Amino acid sequence: MTAFISVAAFEAALADLGDADADARADAQIRQAELTKPAGSLGRLEELALFFAGWQRRARPRIDRARAAIFAGNHGVTVHGVSAFPASVTAQMVANFVSGGAAINALAAAAGLELTVVALDLDRPTADFTVAAAMRADECLDALNRGAAMVEGDLDLIVVGEMGIGNSTAAAALCARSFGGDAAAWVGPGTGVGGDGVARKVAVVETALAFHRGASLWAFETLRRVGGREIVAIAGAVLRARQLRVPVLLDGFICSAAIAPLAADNPAITAHCIAGHCSAEPGHRHLLDMLGLDPLLRLDMRLGEGSGAAVATNIIRSALAAHDQMATFAEAQVSASL
Amino acid sequence: MTAFISVAAFEAALADLGDADADARADAQIRQAELTKPAGSLGRLEELALFFAGWQRRARPRIDRARAAIFAGNHGVTVHGVSAFPASVTAQMVANFVSGGAAINALAAAAGLELTVVALDLDRPTADFTVAAAMRADECLDALNRGAAMVEGDLDLIVVGEMGIGNSTAAAALCARSFGGDAAAWVGPGTGVGGDGVARKVAVVETALAFHRGASLWAFETLRRVGGREIVAIAGAVLRARQLRVPVLLDGFICSAAIAPLAADNPAITAHCIAGHCSAEPGHRHLLDMLGLDPLLRLDMRLGEGSGAAVATNIIRSALAAHDQMATFAEAQVSASL
Repeated sequence: MTAFISVAAFEAALADLGDADADARADAQIRQAELTKPAGSLGRLEELALFFAGWQRRARPRIDRARAAIFAGNHGVTVHGVSAFPASVTAQMVANFVSGGAAINALAAAAGLELTVVALDLDRPTADFTVAAAMRADECLDALNRGAAMVEGDLDLIVVGEMGIGNSTAAAALCARSFGGDAAAWVGPGTGVGGDGVARKVAVVETALAFHRGASLWAFETLRRVGGREIVAIAGAVLRARQLRVPVLLDGFICSAAIAPLAADNPAITAHCIAGHCSAEPGHRHLLDMLGLDPLLRLDMRLGEGSGAAVATNIIRSALAAHDQMATFAEAQVSASL
Repeated sequence: MTAFISVAAFEAALADLGDADADARADAQIRQAELTKPAGSLGRLEELALFFAGWQRRARPRIDRARAAIFAGNHGVTVHGVSAFPASVTAQMVANFVSGGAAINALAAAAGLELTVVALDLDRPTADFTVAAAMRADECLDALNRGAAMVEGDLDLIVVGEMGIGNSTAAAALCARSFGGDAAAWVGPGTGVGGDGVARKVAVVETALAFHRGASLWAFETLRRVGGREIVAIAGAVLRARQLRVPVLLDGFICSAAIAPLAADNPAITAHCIAGHCSAEPGHRHLLDMLGLDPLLRLDMRLGEGSGAAVATNIIRSALAAHDQMATFAEAQVSASL
């Protein structure tokens, strides 16, 4: 099944976002008030329980089946020396994911996530977006649909992550086109580009912004012009998850940047999303503010691969375990207050 | 076996703290540099791997056996109306722990922790420390040893937590005696005391500080005068864990306050400790700063019971899984950099 049969279908889906189930959320809130703890004392864990109740449409939400979908793509912009690693590392790391040796393999297993790796045409990097659109419209639509295809309605949670040498440069361009601000405000060291690498990235993003300045600022055009296949796939997965009411756990800066164009068109897109963590990439904090997302973790991670979100999955499991398994004051015969 | 046969033995132990194994830590650091990720990109997870390598004395540390030890005690200071809950709730919640209905039961299970609940003479509350020392020396020593007894040398991690109506008032007094500062700087709403409850707590702590002003500021005296049995037991467990090189994961404000008197005598006591989270209790952030501990989580939790530390255990498991299971650049044939 093709989720988005045309650009118009994608735009229509983004314009018409469904809501969480208010009744299930209210039932979960009633349950929270009855559990054997001072009201509010589990803080963010309580909010997570209500969030999942609303999107899963049940007062006692749970994570039976959760997937980490890791998308990989290659970027023409790497010709400008924007990364500490050669572009060939994207395919090498995909092989590492498949053979089980990457961080995400260990972290997904520790979080009970089934891991799915989607390599998007690694032998066909996107065009250098300083001098052209990164993708044709059909390529961009294909990437959206390949992301969407990873979301199944029986998932209780989907974690999105990415791998793509050069993609923090694309992410910075997406942020600047979506939310404004100078290139320098959105560019950081990424995987750790040294020397004058950051300055080179800033110059590349400035050139790209100037090149695409006259173009439409609608989500699809921004994704197509300065995105990358893995980034577009994440955008497609997030929008498809909304249609299926599957909660999304975002990884770091790149994943957040993938939905920036969507949020610029319709800020409600983030309502079914949780930010797994705030990465060490300097622009991420500001980006999360613009998206209205409060990250679960701040552990100075900056790897990508869905790694931060995989770690954060454990927080969600803890939150739902407490919500589901705790006794009520009445059940435990505990005095509710003075 | 009695860990601390006398006050002098306790003081001697606190004065003579062992260190982590520098060789194992160095070996772990070498391994980290070889794993398939940009150097430093797992942030705090990498630090955790090195920390555990040092204290567990092996380059690839692991958590096979971990215990959550939850200590409960009752406080004479509750006569001043310092809590939102009646003192009887301490015993009711212990019964809830035993029957499996509390938050810590769900959270410990979700974190793979064996749960041990130690109720310390709940029928004998400590004395009202505004007019007397909370405990006699023999009672304080007994509580230290009951805490120490929960630490076994084959534990890969011990999580400490507490339950005790009124104990955030004791914790504030411990902080003020250990690190100075006004009572108001250390007092907060605890489990959520309403109305003029916080002002009442401040007045109680001020009265206590004035009453004990002339007394020795050594750790044992501070614990004995304004602590509580569950708090002293935590201090005993933390010191015993250091002797056995067992890493400690602290829960919230009360647990941190329990080691404040130890840290005032010997700041090195925190070297084998990790702060699981920063709680919503206002004084906790400042207390963690004074202890030199950077909390793993900030989730606005304020329940106690070891709940925040139990959630944080999952972060440690993730960190050690990545450290142990990831492939090296050579194993995965991934290019290390440009």
